[in-house]
Amino acid sequence: MKMMVLLSNGFEEVEAVAPVDILKRAGVAVDIYSTTGNDVLKGAHNIDFLADKILPDNINSKELSDNYDGVILPGGLPNAHNLRDDERVNEIVMAFYNKSKVIAAICASPCTFEKLGLLEGKKATSYPGCINQDSCGEYTQEAAVRDGNIVTGRSAGAALDFGFEILKALGLEKEAETVKSQIIY
Amino acid sequence: MKMMVLLSNGFEEVEAVAPVDILKRAGVAVDIYSTTGNDVLKGAHNIDFLADKILPDNINSKELSDNYDGVILPGGLPNAHNLRDDERVNEIVMAFYNKSKVIAAICASPCTFEKLGLLEGKKATSYPGCINQDSCGEYTQEAAVRDGNIVTGRSAGAALDFGFEILKALGLEKEAETVKSQIIY
Repeated sequence: MKMMVLLSNGFEEVEAVAPVDILKRAGVAVDIYSTTGNDVLKGAHNIDFLADKILPDNINSKELSDNYDGVILPGGLPNAHNLRDDERVNEIVMAFYNKSKVIAAICASPCTFEKLGLLEGKKATSYPGCINQDSCGEYTQEAAVRDGNIVTGRSAGAALDFGFEILKALGLEKEAETVKSQIIY
Repeated sequence: MKMMVLLSNGFEEVEAVAPVDILKRAGVAVDIYSTTGNDVLKGAHNIDFLADKILPDNINSKELSDNYDGVILPGGLPNAHNLRDDERVNEIVMAFYNKSKVIAAICASPCTFEKLGLLEGKKATSYPGCINQDSCGEYTQEAAVRDGNIVTGRSAGAALDFGFEILKALGLEKEAETVKSQIIY
């Protein structure tokens, strides 16, 4: 299994690292894509990361959604708004959604799903105030929640829970329990 | 206030990022030092970080322990053993300890404190099996624990708790509560 993570500058470092860590421990490959054209990504708290890949200007969203099992949007500002306003990100999310692959966003980043109308009738969460609660079927205060293939997380404090919920959305419930025990969570 | 973090390759990404994030949210400056001579640090799960500074071969531990309020050793292997076996790291930890500044280690990294005999008579934790329990006054199963200026954490799953315990060791109890509420933890 293989997941892609989309990032621009100003992302919440914990919200990027925790789910990637959890996924990799469970044997899922993860590629972190920079959407900025630069392989150095600046976190909201000035921790710099190196992306695995740079998202090209001309993407092939069919190929990406064939090659990966899901896409993850960490939060943080301005990252979440950069992603929401990036047509390539919108196209990728729609391509995964239309193939019933996993789409996951945390903190401020569910705003992309809201913009695309994907939360209608769905149970979802976000950082308080980051999406209009009426855009969801049911807005919840849970740390992380899954409705079908859509996973949303609340905050940096929920980043590990968000990772475990993504594993479950991939059908890796047993692996999720093993990793939880490994990291004593 | 200002803290230093020491890292080599093979560190647990969550254990590095979470405390740095918590500290910076509380207004504490943090410098991440690479002990490898290279500013690109490779995490245990192949997430690459850029260090803020490179630790020189000839360190001035007096100056470092004057300039910073504490030192943090994230875990992960081989990072924890690299740090334990690095004479510069040992000298820095002793310099901070002797000035009653904060020394903090999580997961496998309390092995440096064990090697230096700093856990004798102290309450401490670590990832199970990473230190000899008899090297502490009291070995605990808590996520994160503080005894005087020594903070230890158990595992990647305890990385946020470890960050909050470091804030408390710095006398920033109120800030710890504010950040907990900000990240909804």
